[in-house]
Amino acid sequence: MRLARIATDAGPVPAVADGDDWAVVVDLFARPLVRTGVRVPQDGARLLAPVEPAVVLGMAHNSGPADRGVPPQAFMKSARTVVGPGDPIWLDERAGAVKAEGELTLVVRTTCRHVTPDQFADVVLGWTIGNDVTAVDQVPLDSLFTQAKNGDGFTPVGPWIETDLSTLTDVRIEVDVDGARVATSSTAGLAWDPVEAFCYVTAHVTLGPGDLLLTGAPATSAIVVAGSTTAITLDGLGTLRNVVVAADRTGKGAP
Amino acid sequence: MRLARIATDAGPVPAVADGDDWAVVVDLFARPLVRTGVRVPQDGARLLAPVEPAVVLGMAHNSGPADRGVPPQAFMKSARTVVGPGDPIWLDERAGAVKAEGELTLVVRTTCRHVTPDQFADVVLGWTIGNDVTAVDQVPLDSLFTQAKNGDGFTPVGPWIETDLSTLTDVRIEVDVDGARVATSSTAGLAWDPVEAFCYVTAHVTLGPGDLLLTGAPATSAIVVAGSTTAITLDGLGTLRNVVVAADRTGKGAP
Repeated sequence: MRLARIATDAGPVPAVADGDDWAVVVDLFARPLVRTGVRVPQDGARLLAPVEPAVVLGMAHNSGPADRGVPPQAFMKSARTVVGPGDPIWLDERAGAVKAEGELTLVVRTTCRHVTPDQFADVVLGWTIGNDVTAVDQVPLDSLFTQAKNGDGFTPVGPWIETDLSTLTDVRIEVDVDGARVATSSTAGLAWDPVEAFCYVTAHVTLGPGDLLLTGAPATSAIVVAGSTTAITLDGLGTLRNVVVAADRTGKGAP
Repeated sequence: MRLARIATDAGPVPAVADGDDWAVVVDLFARPLVRTGVRVPQDGARLLAPVEPAVVLGMAHNSGPADRGVPPQAFMKSARTVVGPGDPIWLDERAGAVKAEGELTLVVRTTCRHVTPDQFADVVLGWTIGNDVTAVDQVPLDSLFTQAKNGDGFTPVGPWIETDLSTLTDVRIEVDVDGARVATSSTAGLAWDPVEAFCYVTAHVTLGPGDLLLTGAPATSAIVVAGSTTAITLDGLGTLRNVVVAADRTGKGAP
């Protein structure tokens, strides 16, 4: 199933893809989904970040065999950094250079802790594309990553959620900046695969409906500047497009 | 003014103290506060965590003059760790030893970024007590603090918010465990005072209504075990009491 959150005159609503339409549902996290009967044509619908998480985590140092030699680690991002398809990534010049990072992103369905691989399918809603935007010059200045990971619009996600992927361990990832391919990779390049990463995280942090785990960037990062457009494509998950915009002197251009 | 969030038959509501009552208000973050006309006697009212933050930050290594010699740093805690007065702190034996940490805690009033000291009073709603519960054995295992800071119930806050304190730089802090005084200190022991800490954090992270900054523990921490009761008293802010409860084998006892 393909799930999304769409803008309507009545506000954002969750929906499931059905033919050429989005069929509005009562609760994105319910099983089975209950439809309201309202349908919105997919053509022209405005997609928002598919969830509104309370907790957003990203896997640190999770690419290549060498990272398998050290314990997994995860960092937390502010839920206020989450934006949707087409939304701006704000670039605060005081933070220095900024990278986009294309990542397979897990969406949590239900409250969970100490998840085991056999429980995995029951607690995970599905998968979307995440862009773990990072102010890379801040990384050496702050070992806790707080300065690097939390600029405005630094966690674009979307455009939708797929509940089933044919593979988790070899999802092709392509990153384009300004229409030029700057990275091609796959989740096969992750040191800890998405199931391992999620089980690790939930051993330490209780997660709940809509929470996100960005599973890591297997060499899928690229420097962006004000004016850049980013397009991150994952097999089966479509393309997440955003634009990088210079912030004003308050550090933010958004309201 | 003293602000709180109280449990009622109609659900949680924000309120302002007025004589012997809590006067219910429409929006805790509005200026001026608009009262609904509903009043609840303070005697017997159940106080909840006074806010429901999207972002919770704590200051790292912020006690004593030596910490002033290194740049300030902050870590993020899961918003799902926030609980109120009387709520349990869940102790997962697999995480090892756990400390309670009594801290002056800032409550954000309005969306803000790059806050300067002269803007401070306008964007801050007020102050409450925070307990930055920490699984101390996890600190050496995870330099990002994610494993140490995010157990269930690991961020008790309350019992209420005071909008005005007579001092921010010398607030007395007392920590009692099982009725015995285990720490006596003051925010005078913070390396970076609350205004400095908040301006630092907002240089990197946009905060908004209800967000929390735990300003650091100036030697106000104490080991707790299953069955411990904690009571943290800050001058002018009352006492925040919680109980430490052993989690079940899922890591959590709460629903």
